[in-house]
Amino acid sequence: MDSKRIEQLREAAAAADVSALVLRLPENVLLATRYWPQLVGLGIAVIPLDRDPVLVVPDYEQSEARAVWPGDVRVLPVVRLDGESTGDAIERHLRDIGAELDGGPIGFEGSYEVLAPPAFLGETFAIAGPTQALWERGLGASGLVDVTAAIEAIKVVKSDHDIERLKVTNAVAAKGMDAFKRAATPGRSEIEVAVAVETAIAEVTGRPEARVGRGFATVTSGRAADVGWQYFRSSDRRLEDGDWVLLELGTVVDGYWSDHTRTVVAGTASDEQRAMFAAGRAACDAALAACVPGATGGAVDDAARAACSQAGFEQFPHHTGHGLGFRYHESSPALVPGSSDELVEGMVVAVEPGIYGEGRGGMRWEDDAVVTEDGAELLGGSEYGVD
Amino acid sequence: MDSKRIEQLREAAAAADVSALVLRLPENVLLATRYWPQLVGLGIAVIPLDRDPVLVVPDYEQSEARAVWPGDVRVLPVVRLDGESTGDAIERHLRDIGAELDGGPIGFEGSYEVLAPPAFLGETFAIAGPTQALWERGLGASGLVDVTAAIEAIKVVKSDHDIERLKVTNAVAAKGMDAFKRAATPGRSEIEVAVAVETAIAEVTGRPEARVGRGFATVTSGRAADVGWQYFRSSDRRLEDGDWVLLELGTVVDGYWSDHTRTVVAGTASDEQRAMFAAGRAACDAALAACVPGATGGAVDDAARAACSQAGFEQFPHHTGHGLGFRYHESSPALVPGSSDELVEGMVVAVEPGIYGEGRGGMRWEDDAVVTEDGAELLGGSEYGVD
Repeated sequence: MDSKRIEQLREAAAAADVSALVLRLPENVLLATRYWPQLVGLGIAVIPLDRDPVLVVPDYEQSEARAVWPGDVRVLPVVRLDGESTGDAIERHLRDIGAELDGGPIGFEGSYEVLAPPAFLGETFAIAGPTQALWERGLGASGLVDVTAAIEAIKVVKSDHDIERLKVTNAVAAKGMDAFKRAATPGRSEIEVAVAVETAIAEVTGRPEARVGRGFATVTSGRAADVGWQYFRSSDRRLEDGDWVLLELGTVVDGYWSDHTRTVVAGTASDEQRAMFAAGRAACDAALAACVPGATGGAVDDAARAACSQAGFEQFPHHTGHGLGFRYHESSPALVPGSSDELVEGMVVAVEPGIYGEGRGGMRWEDDAVVTEDGAELLGGSEYGVD
Repeated sequence: MDSKRIEQLREAAAAADVSALVLRLPENVLLATRYWPQLVGLGIAVIPLDRDPVLVVPDYEQSEARAVWPGDVRVLPVVRLDGESTGDAIERHLRDIGAELDGGPIGFEGSYEVLAPPAFLGETFAIAGPTQALWERGLGASGLVDVTAAIEAIKVVKSDHDIERLKVTNAVAAKGMDAFKRAATPGRSEIEVAVAVETAIAEVTGRPEARVGRGFATVTSGRAADVGWQYFRSSDRRLEDGDWVLLELGTVVDGYWSDHTRTVVAGTASDEQRAMFAAGRAACDAALAACVPGATGGAVDDAARAACSQAGFEQFPHHTGHGLGFRYHESSPALVPGSSDELVEGMVVAVEPGIYGEGRGGMRWEDDAVVTEDGAELLGGSEYGVD
C-alpha cells in the first residue's frame, strides 16, 4: 500500500469534510491502490477518513489485486449469472462499508469528463447519475461532495512507483518510435507506418512487466502535415520522397500513459526542412530545460517560443505541453502562454511545440519528462534526425 | 439529415417535457447527426422541439460535418490558443441556441456510464458536473432532465444507414478473423496472433469508406482458455499443438462497433475438441435462429442453452448475447436467462454462447446480426472450422 498516497487522499477527505472518498474511475482506483481494473466499473476503492481502505474487485481478479494492494479486498461475482448479481454484491459491500462510517457526506468523482479506459480498452466507465445514487444509497451517505480537484491535485505529483511505471511505458513507446523511423520511407502508406509502430509496441507487451499495453498511433504526411495539429488519423496515402511524416503516439501500459510525437522526412530532407526540424527540436529542448521546480507553465511556453523564433521559425499557437500519466492528457500543469501553474518536483509533463505552415509542412516533437530538483529528466525517448 | 431519427429525438423531448435535447457523447452525436466527433467533448448536437437542430464542431471539421449533416452547423476554434477560447465559443453558441428556446428544462445524457470513445480513441468524454452546469448556464435552462433511457430506446433500433455502416465494420472485422485463423498455429505467441488480427484490420482502414478503424484483439490460449470468460488480454505464451485459442475482438470503424469471438485449435483438434466446437457452434446457430421479431431475450438464451445440451455440453452461465453497434456493448436487448426484452426488427445483437471447463479448455463463437422480419441476418463474419 502506498501509505503516503492514502494519507493524501484522507487529507483530501478531511478538507472536503466527508467521511470517505469513493473511487470508481479506473485511473483513480489505480492511483489509490495500484490496481488497474479490467472491466468497466468493476473496481471500486473506498478510502475512509479513519478506517481501513477497501478495494472491491471481481472474484477472479483478487489474487492479482492482492499482489499489488495489501489492504482489505472484497470480491464480486461478475460475468456469470448463476448466483448473486454483481449489482447486489456491490450494494452489499457498500452497506457493509457504510455501516462503519458516520452517515455523513462522501467525496466522489463529480467532475471527471475526460477519461482513460480500463484494461479492457474499447469501453470506458464514467460516474453519472446511477453511480451517484448508488453511493448515497449503498454507503448511507447524507450527500455527495465533488472532490475531483483534490484528487487531481494529488495525481499531478507522481510517486516513485508512478515514475517507474511511466518509464516502462516510455520504454515500450520507444520501440514504436524506433519502428516509425525505420518505416517512414517513400512508398509506404501512412497506415502501414502506423501498423509498424503499433506492432513494435504490442510485441513487447503481454509479459509480467508490461502486461496490457497498446499504442494508439496516427501518421500524417504530405500536405496533411501542414495542418498536423488538426485531424489525428492515418490514411492509405503513400509517402513520397521529401514528405514530412508526423507520428502522434499515445501508449498505455498497465494503466500508465505516455504521449509522444516524432517527425521525420521520408527520403531526403531539403535544407529548409532541416532548418525547420532543428527549430522544432530546439523549441522542445528549450521547453524541457525550462521545466524546473518553481517555473510556471507560462515560462516553459515562453522558453519554447523564444527558441523557435531564434531559429527563424514561429511556433504554432497550440499548447507547448501538458501533464500526463494516468491519462493520455491531464489538464495540469498547463504549459501554455500565461499559465501560472507552478512546476513542482514529481510532476510529469509532455512538451510538444509545433511548427506548421501552408505549403511548408509540419514539425512536432514530443517527449515526456519528470520534474526533478535538477530539472526535467526524460522518461525515455528515441533519438534520431530528420532523415 | 435522418429526419426519422430527428423526429424520434423530438418525440423523446416532448415525452420528457423538455424544450430540447443536448447531446455531447460521441455515440449520441453520431446517432443524431451521422457525424462522429474526433476530440473529447468537441461535438455537440442540440435537438429543439420546434426549431432546427444544430451541430457544433471544430472549425476545421466543418466540411466533413457538412458532408454528412445538411443541417445547421456552428463552429468552434479549438487547439489553437490565439483567439476566442473553445469554452467561450461553446458558451456563445449555447446562448444563441438558448435564446430561441423557451427557458424550460433541457433533456441531457444523465445516466451514461459505459462509454464508447470518439475518433481519437485513447480518451473518452463523459457528462459530469461541469457539462451539466454548462447546459443550464449556456442554454438558460430551468433544469435538466435525464433522457438516457429514451435515447437508448431510439438507439436500440438501427436505421438502414446504421446497418450499412455496421456491415462495413463487420467486413473490416472479418479481415481480422481470417487473419486469426491463419495465424493461430503452434509456435506463435498470443501477442503475435493478436497483432496479425489488428494489422489485417488496420490495413483496410484509412480510406473514405472506413476512415478511422481499429481492432481491439485479445488472444487467450492453453489453460487460460479454461476460464476464457475472465481476463481479456494476450500474453507472450506460445501456442502448442492441440491448444484451444480464443480471439475476443472489438472493432470500431467510423463510430460503429462490432463484437466477435472466434475459437480454433492450434495444430490438430482432438475428437473431444471437435465435439465441443460443434456444440458451441450449434448454440450460436440456435441463438441466431431464435432472434426473430417478438422473441424475448430469454427465449434466445433458452434456445442456445438447449442446443448446447443437446450436443452434450453445458453452456456457461454468462450471457448468450447483447445489443451493440454504437458501443462495443449496449445493454439492450439482454439475451440472458429470463430476459423479457422483446426483439424487434432493426435491433442488432451479438450472440456469444460459451463453453468452458477446468482442464477442458474454452470455446466461444460470436457473430453480429440484425433482426429482420425473416429472422436474424448476419452482418458479416468469417467462416471456418476448429482446425
